[in-house]
Amino acid sequence: MELTTRLTQTLGLCHPVISAPMAFAAGGALAAAVSRAGGLGLIGGGYGDEDWLEEQFRLAEGERVGVGFITWSLQKSPALLTGVLKHRPAAVMLSFGDPRPFVDEIRAARAVLICQCQTIDHVRDALDLGAEVVVAQAAEAGGHGALRGALSFIPEAADLIREQSACACLVAAGGIADGRGLAAALMLGAEGVLVGTRLWASAEALVHPRHHDAILAAGGDETIRTSTPDIARQLPWPTGFSARVLQNTFTRRWHGREDELRRAVAEEGPRYREAAAAGDPEGTAVWFGEAAGLIREIRPAGEIVEAMAAEAARLLGRT
Amino acid sequence: MELTTRLTQTLGLCHPVISAPMAFAAGGALAAAVSRAGGLGLIGGGYGDEDWLEEQFRLAEGERVGVGFITWSLQKSPALLTGVLKHRPAAVMLSFGDPRPFVDEIRAARAVLICQCQTIDHVRDALDLGAEVVVAQAAEAGGHGALRGALSFIPEAADLIREQSACACLVAAGGIADGRGLAAALMLGAEGVLVGTRLWASAEALVHPRHHDAILAAGGDETIRTSTPDIARQLPWPTGFSARVLQNTFTRRWHGREDELRRAVAEEGPRYREAAAAGDPEGTAVWFGEAAGLIREIRPAGEIVEAMAAEAARLLGRT
Repeated sequence: MELTTRLTQTLGLCHPVISAPMAFAAGGALAAAVSRAGGLGLIGGGYGDEDWLEEQFRLAEGERVGVGFITWSLQKSPALLTGVLKHRPAAVMLSFGDPRPFVDEIRAARAVLICQCQTIDHVRDALDLGAEVVVAQAAEAGGHGALRGALSFIPEAADLIREQSACACLVAAGGIADGRGLAAALMLGAEGVLVGTRLWASAEALVHPRHHDAILAAGGDETIRTSTPDIARQLPWPTGFSARVLQNTFTRRWHGREDELRRAVAEEGPRYREAAAAGDPEGTAVWFGEAAGLIREIRPAGEIVEAMAAEAARLLGRT
Repeated sequence: MELTTRLTQTLGLCHPVISAPMAFAAGGALAAAVSRAGGLGLIGGGYGDEDWLEEQFRLAEGERVGVGFITWSLQKSPALLTGVLKHRPAAVMLSFGDPRPFVDEIRAARAVLICQCQTIDHVRDALDLGAEVVVAQAAEAGGHGALRGALSFIPEAADLIREQSACACLVAAGGIADGRGLAAALMLGAEGVLVGTRLWASAEALVHPRHHDAILAAGGDETIRTSTPDIARQLPWPTGFSARVLQNTFTRRWHGREDELRRAVAEEGPRYREAAAAGDPEGTAVWFGEAAGLIREIRPAGEIVEAMAAEAARLLGRT
């Protein structure tokens, strides 16, 4: 069974599935497992730790993987990009900020440019840059993102690509955890999917076991979009982006009381970080999206990718 | 070409498409046009105007249509339900509130019970009541709704129906404007779709031409979820529901300043209503969802339904 799309052709994949470069969670082992299964694994560049990135590329050695960055953060330490390009990543994904300062360097390294977009204006900008892959990320996604809904955003982005006669591949992100989501994304005009939450709940993800327990216990109604984790960590996220996380003691305490949290950050910041380090799923953000309600077990990433592709092929009558 | 699902069988339809009972916009002409084309048209019961409802049923005479109510509002004037049941509607849809007080009367009239749900808990309640049709409404929908994303909410609801061995038909709502959305909904596990915004932009909808001009000019990024129209109209909507409308002068002025609007409502309420009556698309809410970005012309409702079904059948390889 096969799902051949322009994405699988552009990136040389067996399955039209890319793993999201989730900060902290998407290390080399996860990226390698996804690539080994026939998708494309992306290491999460996160907020920029050169040693950690080196180690993750070492762990993925022998597999063709890519890397993703939080663009506004990369702007503060652009040398990180130069560093990872030495590993000849198959692709570099940029999200949450202006990709322009990095495009030439990515292109010179012959890496595929993936731009993740949260609005139609972002898509237009990515097409203007000549991005080979455009990810349309819907609001149900875990972690950072914005507010569009998938059923209208994906076809609207597909129409824009067609109108501009662009050859970019459209990829859907947000809420896709099994073959149903992949098949739906293809019907909407996408050429593949970017998967976060479902792979966060994989054996290879760098996630504390208590956080994995939390996702298995949660339904899809139990997440929230909030800026409180960024306030607690004093991370200067640009306006327009918030994070989808589990509703827990931390979010119930501070969501809606953002100004108070800002004033109390000298005390609450260290408390948040200690809870994160301890794997406490109540005192810190737990980073998953609405697809939590579709996840019943922690599985090896390769199995997840293969099962997703097989189910989508079956649903689309291509078995 | 045919899309036969359990929904088309349950309701006796040619196409698995139901029109949303949009307050004020979904009158008898729209409902009749949708039913005539092979879907099921629902008249919008809105906030309850008996004479208006009588007139709309008269306009739909000869076609098999249904009706939908805002449940918390219907609780204030339950005689409205008794009144419309005399017209022997094919189905009664209840949304936004506790459907239990009305179930027996709907069943006694042999109308199909449709419960629109915004969370998995709503779905569970609807299944417990024995609803024949359960609508899972995503956040991108126009008008009132809540916050779930379609790509995860629809399959999660489908799994719940299967786990409970319920025979309810699942219907997807929110952001569906063409055959791509219908095909995607079927892949996600739905048996059909409920269409609002796309049919709001139809020739038969009771919508001011200047509001129709506004949707043709808008992209999908240009809507917002807000409570400001309900505050201006002094409608006591329950917590957890807000309205998706066009971002315009009214929402830019008041969204985020809800307490001020409440204090100014003696002046702003009449101003809002005058703008609505005049068809002013800036001074009042304009009721459409993110699917606006997929809509390029005002078409007859029957053509919209038929084109949607034909495109979905083609995408699914059933032509």
